[in-house]
Formats: sequence, structure tokens, C-alpha cells
Amino acid sequence: MRYKDAGVDLQKHNNIHEIAKMHVFKLSNELGSIIGGVGGYSPYMRIFGRELTLHVDGVGTKVQILSKFKKLDVAGWDCIAMNANDMACEGFRTLAFSDYIAMDSADEEGFEEIIKGMIDALRKVKAPLLSGETAIMPGIVSGKDVVCFALGSREIEFKNKAKEGDVVVGVESNGLHSNGYSLVRKVVEEKIGGYDREIEGLDLKVELTKPTFLYYNLIIESIKKDLINSAAHVTGGGWKKLKRVLGEVLDMNLSPPPPPQIFEVLLKYGEIPIEEAYSVFNMGVGLVFTTEKESLEELIELIERHSFRPVILGEVSKGSGLLKIEANKYGKNFVL
Amino acid sequence: MRYKDAGVDLQKHNNIHEIAKMHVFKLSNELGSIIGGVGGYSPYMRIFGRELTLHVDGVGTKVQILSKFKKLDVAGWDCIAMNANDMACEGFRTLAFSDYIAMDSADEEGFEEIIKGMIDALRKVKAPLLSGETAIMPGIVSGKDVVCFALGSREIEFKNKAKEGDVVVGVESNGLHSNGYSLVRKVVEEKIGGYDREIEGLDLKVELTKPTFLYYNLIIESIKKDLINSAAHVTGGGWKKLKRVLGEVLDMNLSPPPPPQIFEVLLKYGEIPIEEAYSVFNMGVGLVFTTEKESLEELIELIERHSFRPVILGEVSKGSGLLKIEANKYGKNFVL
Repeated sequence: MRYKDAGVDLQKHNNIHEIAKMHVFKLSNELGSIIGGVGGYSPYMRIFGRELTLHVDGVGTKVQILSKFKKLDVAGWDCIAMNANDMACEGFRTLAFSDYIAMDSADEEGFEEIIKGMIDALRKVKAPLLSGETAIMPGIVSGKDVVCFALGSREIEFKNKAKEGDVVVGVESNGLHSNGYSLVRKVVEEKIGGYDREIEGLDLKVELTKPTFLYYNLIIESIKKDLINSAAHVTGGGWKKLKRVLGEVLDMNLSPPPPPQIFEVLLKYGEIPIEEAYSVFNMGVGLVFTTEKESLEELIELIERHSFRPVILGEVSKGSGLLKIEANKYGKNFVL
Repeated sequence: MRYKDAGVDLQKHNNIHEIAKMHVFKLSNELGSIIGGVGGYSPYMRIFGRELTLHVDGVGTKVQILSKFKKLDVAGWDCIAMNANDMACEGFRTLAFSDYIAMDSADEEGFEEIIKGMIDALRKVKAPLLSGETAIMPGIVSGKDVVCFALGSREIEFKNKAKEGDVVVGVESNGLHSNGYSLVRKVVEEKIGGYDREIEGLDLKVELTKPTFLYYNLIIESIKKDLINSAAHVTGGGWKKLKRVLGEVLDMNLSPPPPPQIFEVLLKYGEIPIEEAYSVFNMGVGLVFTTEKESLEELIELIERHSFRPVILGEVSKGSGLLKIEANKYGKNFVL
């Protein structure tokens, strides 16, 4: 089974991004030079002597599983965490957030759980929730859709580009985080036969409702201490996101550790090809740094001080923008 | 028929706002004094020597009708216009926008229409689209959900409070704008029998797909020229939104003009009580200023220069925060 079989056509999705980019480009040119980084990962505007960015991300279809198991606080937490992790990778501090929650009914209890989860994460990133909108739209939304917008400010210049010879250091994820859930749901519903069960010793309720790790403070500190050359938050697109830090003249040569068991179960029951799995899921690694050898020890210590487990994944070499992955566990090498 | 009958329970919706406010308050207190106006209409943060705000609003169920009639550019336009109008009423200029579009399939053509509409409006408010997220979520979203987030900066102090003796000046709307569509859809589908028809000489396709007027530049200019004491963008909650500028010691005494015919048709076929209509729809008036008598003539000229039609609605007197409405056309006086 592939992501496309779950109704998610990444090619079409990419086309949509290209359409948006084209129109946004044109407008930015008209408006003059206040915009920087357009077309890159985090466009920003230069204003008030600062570089400000807006970022938006939603929790997607994971919310339906969280709702089923009454863990909606995790939806709120994830919504803040995903945005904060993404922005920190580009050197932006979060200044404030805004939320949008669409629901099929005015579920006050569920709403409060979501907000509580947001507030918990906001406290960690020290940013306020400045506004919010709740739309009750039966017939348009089934269940809930949870989306957050973030305002960020870049305080330190950070290129976020890997260098030849860099060591690639992964930081463990907390399981699935919040990407690939359309595929997860399809496998669980059609191949495993439902959510309320244990499978190969794993309680699906626990595995599918874990919060996304908040790496924000670790990333910001790594940048401030000049310990890293690049940072990638592994979300939509899985490990393919690592390619962004390579440009066109470098490769990454990676030997990932065996993924946590939930991924094994999904791959097995869903008959998901290994290349597809690394293009959709984080496979146990939620954040990837590259660092120069001299900084490696200090970076490892910092990761551990933030209570995360680091793992050496490989190194950066001359190349052509490819990820070369040796998945020893699967007896297979492949290129993304 | 009432708004509640269309599945929109305003009381529950208010409860949800109160829940959010409580948690947001608590966090803001913890984070210190960077936040101003919390609990008011537009909370803002003081940072970089500026007052910045984030605002969020979506086009709601109107999108389904726009989609049906292939007018999705109006969804994009409305999304920007609604946010810009709202923010301008509090004295905020729009600096940048971000969008979130959820769809049940990767409809490239529909998506491009939406973005084109956004770009048209963004050009008028001179703000860039700094980021965007597109979520393809079949099973969670039916049709499309179009949401915009805006970053604003307050450049001129504006209290947005009416004063005793102020003249109340309305600015015509372009029909329904984008509020009350859950009720509109219920009336059209259940009482009128469908969208593809003319009724009492009105083409529903035309009436229900009109873009929201962009008042942003008019409002900003009125504030800059010190021509108004308050401004209210008539959206969700209909005319009840005017109460925000009154506080607890003033009333507005209003004699609105007869509403445009589309409202008459909806009221008649939906058997919507007149008080309910003024609490849900704009009833032909999309923006309401209050101004001192000496500024009235200049304000009227400015409104006309922006190609809108002004209408004198009444005056502000001592009172207790009430809207006293004489709906002559309906032979009825009522209080909101």
C-alpha cells in the first residue's frame, strides 16, 4: 500500500504548491522588496528592522483518532509543537500563535481539551495565543479540524545548509508524531481491522495518540550555541525533507537504526514498501541535525540534556542532492 | 426559522469563546505584560516598539455555494476582505497574510481560483501572502474550507468607542457578504427548493455569490483623517456587533433603511423573525461608523469617494449599551 492509495496524491499536492508559489511570487514582486526567501522554505518579510515570518500547519486526520480516544489535548499540543519545530529549524523564534478549529458540532468539552493542550505547549515556547476562530460547520466538517498559525522573528542568522563532512545526527521521535495518518488509518481500518486492539504486543490506542515531541527549545539552543549547520523537522514527506538542507552538490549517506515497532507493524500489515515508508513517516527520527565533527560531542550532550535520545545516522559527502539510505534491517539500500 | 434551526447555536458558540478566553488570559498573565487588549476585540502584543495583532477568519459555508457556481475566486477574495475589514476597525494595518485551505480532493483548478481571488484582494490592501497550507482530507472535509490569518500593526491610536451625540453612518453592503450562510442554505434548500432558480425576480446564483465589499482602505483613511469615533464591520452576529463600540452607558437609536430584496426573500420564505434577521445578517449595511456632527459631511464625501453608498442610520445617546431599532418597514420596534 502507498500513500496515494490512502487518497493522498503527493504529485497533485505538489502541483498545488507550485500554483500558489507562482501567484505569490508575482504579488511579492509587485509589492517590492520587503519579502525575502520567497520560494524557499520560510519566506519572511523585513519590517521594523526585523525578519518576520508567518507559518501555518494543522494536525490533519490524526485528530479523528485523538477524538475517538478522548485525547484531544494532544491535538492542541501537536498543533503548536509542529509549527514551533518547523520555524525553529529556520532560526525563527515564535512570538505568538493564532488558532482555527472547525467542528461538526459545538463540543465544548472537546474544545476545552484542545485549548488546554495548546496552552501547555505555548507555555514551553513562551508565546501567547493572540486570537482564534471556531467554526461550527456540520455537513462541511466531520469531526474536528485543528490548525495553528504562528508569527516568528529571526534573531540569529542561520543558513540551514549542510556542509561536506558534516555528521548527521538524528533525534528520536515519539512514534508517529502527526504525519502519515491518512495511510495509518487506512492500514488500521482495512488491514488490521480496527483501533481497539493490541497487535504484536502494541496497544494501538497508546501508539496512535502519542504527542509530537517539542524540539523547539533544543533547536533554538543548538543554533544559538553555533553547534549545527542544518536542522530538519521530519514531518510531511518523511525523510525527503532532509534533502532541503543539501542543495544540489551534497549527498547524505545514512544508516538509520531499526524503527520503533509501530512502524514495523504498519509496514507489515499495510505491505508498505520501505522507500515509501521513509517518504511518509519519520521512522523513529523526528529531527535531523548536521554538525561539524568538532561540535558533535557538545551537540550530543545538549540533546541528552533536553531529555531526547540522539542517534548518529551518517555523514554528508559531495554528491547531487541525494539521500542514500542503507536500511540494513531490511537488507536493502535505496535512494530518495 | 432561526439560526439555531440551521445547526448554529450561538449560545454554545459563546460558551466556547469564554472557555478559550479563560485559558488565554491565564497564559497571558504568566507570560507577563507583552499582551494588551486581552478579552477585548483585538488582543495585541507590544513588541519591537509596535502593537502587533494576529487575526483569523474563514469564509465558512458560503464556500460550498461558490464552489457549486464555479465562483471560488470570491472565496479567496472574501477571506482576505473579511480579515482586513475587521482589523482596520481596530486601527490595524495589514502587514501580511497566511492561508489554510482544506479540501476533499486535490482540485488544482478550484485551488487556483481561490488563490487568484486572494491575490486580487491582497493587491488592494498591499500585503503579501507569506505562507500557506493545503490539506487534502477526504472524509474529514466535504468540499472546501478556506481560512486566512493576518498579521497587523497599529500605527495610529484609535479607541473605537462611540461618543454621546455621534451620528451613526452606515455603509452599504454588497448583499449577504459571507455571514449567515448556514441559515441561507437551509432556507434555500428546504423552503425555496434549490439554488438554480429565479425568485421574485432575483437570480439566486448572482445574489448568493457576491463578494464581500473591501472597506479596508476607507476605514484606514477615515481613522487617519480623524473623521470617526468608532467603526464596526457587520459580520457574524449581525448588527449586534455594533454594541461593542457603545460600552455600558450609551445606546444607539437607529432607523435602518429597507434591506435589499435578497434579505426580504430570505425573511419571507424562511419565516425569519426580524430581530433574528438583524442578529444574523448585515441587512444591507456592511460597515457602521459613528462620527461627530462636524465631521459628518467630510465622512460622507470620503465614503462616496471610495465608491460606496452612505446612509444615516441614527444617533448615539445616553443609555445602557442597547441598540434601539425602528424597523419602520416592518412596523416594529425592537431592542438588541
